[in-house]
Amino acid sequence: MKHQPLWIRHASQLVTLAGTSQAPVTGAGMNQLSFIENGSVWLEDGKIVHVGKDEELEAIFGSRRDEARIIDATGKLVTPGLIDPHTHLVHAGSRQNEFNMRLHGATYMEIMNNGGGIHATTSATRVATHDQLFAESKKRLDQFLLHGVTTVEAKSGYGMTLDVELKQLEVAKRLHEEHPVDIVSTFMGAHAVPREYRDHPDDFVELLIREMIPEVARRGLAVFNDVFCERGVFTPEQSRRILEAGKEYGLLPKIHADEIEPYEGAELAAEIGAVSADHLLRASEHGIERMAQSGVIAVLLPGTAFFLMAESANGRKMIDAGVAVAISTDCNPGSSPTVSMPLIMNLGCLKMGMTPAEVLTAATINAAHAIRCADRIGSIETGKQADITIFEVPDYMTLQYRYGVNHVHTVIKRGAVVVSDGRLIEEF
Amino acid sequence: MKHQPLWIRHASQLVTLAGTSQAPVTGAGMNQLSFIENGSVWLEDGKIVHVGKDEELEAIFGSRRDEARIIDATGKLVTPGLIDPHTHLVHAGSRQNEFNMRLHGATYMEIMNNGGGIHATTSATRVATHDQLFAESKKRLDQFLLHGVTTVEAKSGYGMTLDVELKQLEVAKRLHEEHPVDIVSTFMGAHAVPREYRDHPDDFVELLIREMIPEVARRGLAVFNDVFCERGVFTPEQSRRILEAGKEYGLLPKIHADEIEPYEGAELAAEIGAVSADHLLRASEHGIERMAQSGVIAVLLPGTAFFLMAESANGRKMIDAGVAVAISTDCNPGSSPTVSMPLIMNLGCLKMGMTPAEVLTAATINAAHAIRCADRIGSIETGKQADITIFEVPDYMTLQYRYGVNHVHTVIKRGAVVVSDGRLIEEF
Ligand SMILES: [Zn+2]
Ligand SMILES: [Zn+2]
Repeated sequence: MKHQPLWIRHASQLVTLAGTSQAPVTGAGMNQLSFIENGSVWLEDGKIVHVGKDEELEAIFGSRRDEARIIDATGKLVTPGLIDPHTHLVHAGSRQNEFNMRLHGATYMEIMNNGGGIHATTSATRVATHDQLFAESKKRLDQFLLHGVTTVEAKSGYGMTLDVELKQLEVAKRLHEEHPVDIVSTFMGAHAVPREYRDHPDDFVELLIREMIPEVARRGLAVFNDVFCERGVFTPEQSRRILEAGKEYGLLPKIHADEIEPYEGAELAAEIGAVSADHLLRASEHGIERMAQSGVIAVLLPGTAFFLMAESANGRKMIDAGVAVAISTDCNPGSSPTVSMPLIMNLGCLKMGMTPAEVLTAATINAAHAIRCADRIGSIETGKQADITIFEVPDYMTLQYRYGVNHVHTVIKRGAVVVSDGRLIEEF
Repeated sequence: MKHQPLWIRHASQLVTLAGTSQAPVTGAGMNQLSFIENGSVWLEDGKIVHVGKDEELEAIFGSRRDEARIIDATGKLVTPGLIDPHTHLVHAGSRQNEFNMRLHGATYMEIMNNGGGIHATTSATRVATHDQLFAESKKRLDQFLLHGVTTVEAKSGYGMTLDVELKQLEVAKRLHEEHPVDIVSTFMGAHAVPREYRDHPDDFVELLIREMIPEVARRGLAVFNDVFCERGVFTPEQSRRILEAGKEYGLLPKIHADEIEPYEGAELAAEIGAVSADHLLRASEHGIERMAQSGVIAVLLPGTAFFLMAESANGRKMIDAGVAVAISTDCNPGSSPTVSMPLIMNLGCLKMGMTPAEVLTAATINAAHAIRCADRIGSIETGKQADITIFEVPDYMTLQYRYGVNHVHTVIKRGAVVVSDGRLIEEF
C-alpha cells in the first residue's frame, strides 16, 4: 500500500509552510503562513512529489488518476504532520492519585511521602521489562498519531542508571522502527539527581560524563543530550559540563531551563549553542535576547503550566523578541500527562498570546528545527517526507477557534494512510 | 435494537452517584462519589434495571445471558451520561475570523465594526432556513454525543424577533425528536437588546413580556426562561420583570449573572427563585451566600473564561460556601465555540480548583438538577433512563489526569448503543 501514489485534492486550505526548511522561522515570519486554497498534493514512494492548486495537479497527474488512491479534502484543512519536539514518552506507571491529592490541597512533601514525584516513575520504569515499557509507550504513541502527530522527540531520564537509561532508549528505538510515528531520541540521564546520590551529586555528574554519555553515544542511541538545569537539581555549572561532554561525543545539547525560577538557563543555552531551551517560564529578558541572537529555539510547554496551574511562558514576548518558538506537550506522568498537540496549540493561543498562524508554525516547521529534522519534515514541499495531517475544519483559524476538540481526520505517514476518519488503520 | 437488554460488565469503576436525585448535591457531598469496583449494570427497555457488583448481577441475570448484548468494560470507567446544562446550540455561522482578530490585538469596537459580535450570529441565524439551522446544529450535537454527552440544554436568543426565536426553538424540538441526545429548551429572547431597540430598550422588554413569552409558552416550546443580566444589556430590574413574566406562564427562571462585573445577578437569582444562575465570575460574596441559602444552582462555564482569556469563576469557593455547582460548555459561536464536556471537566479542576470527584458530580447529577431532570437522568440507579457513558480510563481520577483528550469509548442512550469505540453508530 505504501507504494500506491496518494492524491489529496480539493483542500479548502493547504498549509505548505513553503520556504522554511533552511532556518527556524522567527518574528513576523511565524505569523505569515504560506497556504494554498483549493489545493492538491501528490505523494509517491513516501515523498511529496508535487504541491499546488487543484487545476495544476489535475493537468499534471490527471492521466495517472487510476493509479492513485484519491483523498477528497473538500472542506478540510491540510497541514504538515504535527511534530512534538519534547516528550518523556517512554516511562511506566501513572500518577493520577498524586494529581488528585494535589487538587485536595496536598503539599509537595505530602505527595513525596506518599510515594509520589519523579521517583515514583523512576521506580516503576526501573522494574518494568523492555516489553512492558514498549507496550505502555506504544499505546501513548498510538494516541499521538490519532492527534495528528507524525514525529515525536523522546527523552530517557527515568532510569538514571546506565542500564535503565539504555532500556528506555532501546524501547524508543524499537518504537521508531515498528511504529509509524518517527522517534528522535534524547539522552536525559541528567533528569534528576537520583536518591542514592543526594548527598554527593557531583559524583552523579561524573558518572554521566565518564560512563553514560560515552556509552549512549557509542551505541548510537540518541541525537540529543538534555539536562534539567534548575535550583536543587543541576546547577548551570554542572549543566554546562554535562552538555559539553555530550558535544564531545556528538550529542547535540538541549536544556530544561528556567522553569521554576530564573536560573540563567536561557543564557547558558545561548552560550553553549544549544539547539533548544525548553520551558523558559522564568527566563530573563537578557536570556531571551541572547537566545534570539544565538538562534536557540524556545520549546514552550503550555500544557505543563496548565496542568501545574502556573502562568505559561510568555510566547508572545519571545516571538516579538525574535526568538524562534516551537511548542510541545512535554508528555510525562508528573507534570503533563497529555498526548494532545491540538490542545497545546489552543493553549498557545489562549495562554501564550500566540496567533493561530504562529501556533501552527510552532507545531510543525519550528518543531522540526528544534529536533534538527527540518530538512525532511515540517513543511509540505517537493522532496520532503510525505507526513501530512488532515483536519475536519476549513482553515487554520477554525482549528484553534473550535477549541478543546481533536479535529484530526486523516494522518499520512511516509505516504501511507495511518489514520482515517479519526481511527488508526489496523494494518500498519 | 433498543429492546435488546444491555449488560455492561466488569467496569473497573462504575460511578453511580446513588442517592442524589432528590436534591442538588452540595458541600462535601460533591466530593463523595458513590462508585462500585468491578461493577455491572443491566439495561432494558431504555431503563436501568439493576446496578451492582459483577457477582451480584451474574447471580440474577446469568440465566438470561444469551438474550443480552454484553459490553465488556474491563479497565474502563462507567458513568452516567454527561449532561450539558447551558448551551446556545442552535445558531448559524462561525466566527473564527473574529477570534483571529482578537489574537492580533483587535479591540472589541474594531471587531464589531468588522461585522463581528453577537449581531453577526443574529444576522446569520435570522436568514438561515429551518433546515439549514437543523443541519448545522445536528453536526454539533453529533459532536456532543462523541464527547459523552447524552442531554443538552439549548437556548434560543439569536433571533430576538418572535419568528426567529420560534424557529430556533422548533429546530431544538426537532433535534430532540430526531437525534439521540435529549434537548431541554430555554427561551432566551432576552439575550441582547436588538439593534433596532438600542434607543428604547424598555419597548423590547415589553415585547418579550407581552408577546414572545406568552407565545413560546402557549406552544410548549420551552421549559426555562433566561435573561442576560449585565450592565449595558438588561438591568436587574428589567431582568426581574422578564423572569417574573416567564414564571406566570410556567417558564422556570434561569439567569446569566455577574459575568463581566458584579451586578447583583446572584442576589436576584436567589430572590426570584431561579433554578440556576450561570457564569458568576464576578458574583459577590453575599450573592453566593444567598444562592446557597435559596438552593440556586451555580452553572459555571470555565471554557468561556478560558476562551476569553479571563479568570474563571471561583468554583472552589462556591462549593465551600454550600452552593450546588454544575458545569457546562456554554457552547456558542462568540465566547465558547466548544462541544467538549471532557475539557470543561479538566478546566473545572485546573482553573476552578475543583477535585476530579466534584467535576464529575457537576457534569452529571448537578447538571441534571440544573435543568430539572434529576428524577430521570444524572445517576445510575434502578428505574432511571439508561443514559451511560463509558470512558477508556480505569477511574474518575485518571479521566482528569490524562487531560486534553476525549476518552469516550461507548455512549448508551435510552438503552441503545449510539457511540461505540469512539464513533457514532450509523443506524440511530
Ligand atoms: Zn521535559
Ligand atoms: Zn450563555
